[in-house]
Amino acid sequence: MNLIDNLKWRYATKKFDPSKKVSDKDIETLKEAVRLSVSSYGLQLYKVLIIKNTEIKRELKKASWDQSQITDASHLFVFCNYTMNFDYHIDNYIQLIAEAQGIGTDALRNYSETIKSSIEKKDQIGKKSWAEKQTYLALSNLLAACAELKIDACPMEGFDNQSYNQILGLDELGLNAAVIAPVGYRSAEDSTQYRKKIRKPVSKLFQTI
Amino acid sequence: MNLIDNLKWRYATKKFDPSKKVSDKDIETLKEAVRLSVSSYGLQLYKVLIIKNTEIKRELKKASWDQSQITDASHLFVFCNYTMNFDYHIDNYIQLIAEAQGIGTDALRNYSETIKSSIEKKDQIGKKSWAEKQTYLALSNLLAACAELKIDACPMEGFDNQSYNQILGLDELGLNAAVIAPVGYRSAEDSTQYRKKIRKPVSKLFQTI
Repeated sequence: MNLIDNLKWRYATKKFDPSKKVSDKDIETLKEAVRLSVSSYGLQLYKVLIIKNTEIKRELKKASWDQSQITDASHLFVFCNYTMNFDYHIDNYIQLIAEAQGIGTDALRNYSETIKSSIEKKDQIGKKSWAEKQTYLALSNLLAACAELKIDACPMEGFDNQSYNQILGLDELGLNAAVIAPVGYRSAEDSTQYRKKIRKPVSKLFQTI
Repeated sequence: MNLIDNLKWRYATKKFDPSKKVSDKDIETLKEAVRLSVSSYGLQLYKVLIIKNTEIKRELKKASWDQSQITDASHLFVFCNYTMNFDYHIDNYIQLIAEAQGIGTDALRNYSETIKSSIEKKDQIGKKSWAEKQTYLALSNLLAACAELKIDACPMEGFDNQSYNQILGLDELGLNAAVIAPVGYRSAEDSTQYRKKIRKPVSKLFQTI
């Protein structure tokens, strides 16, 4: 199976080769894989920033416990969930559906209200967690797509998301940096690439009932 | 690209054909794709229940707003995050690493302490959200693997997770049903399979900096 072979190939890259850049064509492919991610109701309540700018990467590195992947990797993907104005985003989504189906948004009013009231029922903490979770689905597709293209990546939660929000001006946009992934090409010197992949055995991870 | 073709093929299946069952061989492949998922520190702080039992599926359907996918699908994957005893799970993980690397766990004591203290810093709500997020990475791999095998699936948050925890006896095991996915084969009558996939345009979803 392609996916399994690719997942076995990949690893959380600790040291990237700063001289190797991911091509624009491959970046477009990665974006398409992320774009096709599933999300709650299909809302995709997030935005993905792709950082190439050297100066900004240097700033972000300081907000990432100085981990070298941030500056050495070719591109840094920052998955940012929306933190507010959910009704506005739902209206935009309903508009997308209406256009695709060639109908008016009026015909989707009940559906729109169902989504809005379902989200409204969550408390602030529940909304935050729910919105952040959706970015993990997108991150996972990015990693699988990278592996298929033999591009290296390192999914990371180890960064100061408030500093990220400040550096990238996310607060003003109603966005929050939820999870990140530098992508690029591994350095030959990265010894972690030779380590055995550690995963729970099937018997511990699954139970059939 | 295989992944993109597969992601385009899949859709959130609303009506499964109850007569079609996923083979044991394919279930093992799906499990392997889930098992290879990335997770925070590699801890895989979750267990995946695979429900085949008709009676239990009937009970769970009642706790899922009576959605027919729960009983009509061949297998129901329930992704359950651990809710307690994180130190115990971290110790088990360290044991796995030590065995793979042929070293004693003493050599990994600092690493173990780093993970434990990093998780201990999160408050209760932060721990819950963090543990649940990891299951979304596993769910995403399940969906990609299903699509490669042309098995249908429906990722679902629409269920009463407290009822799930009760029916499946999860509370006693320190587990919580975070997200679910029935898998099987679409019914020819499922009209949603013909709908255009709705996703945000690249220009709205991404920003390169």
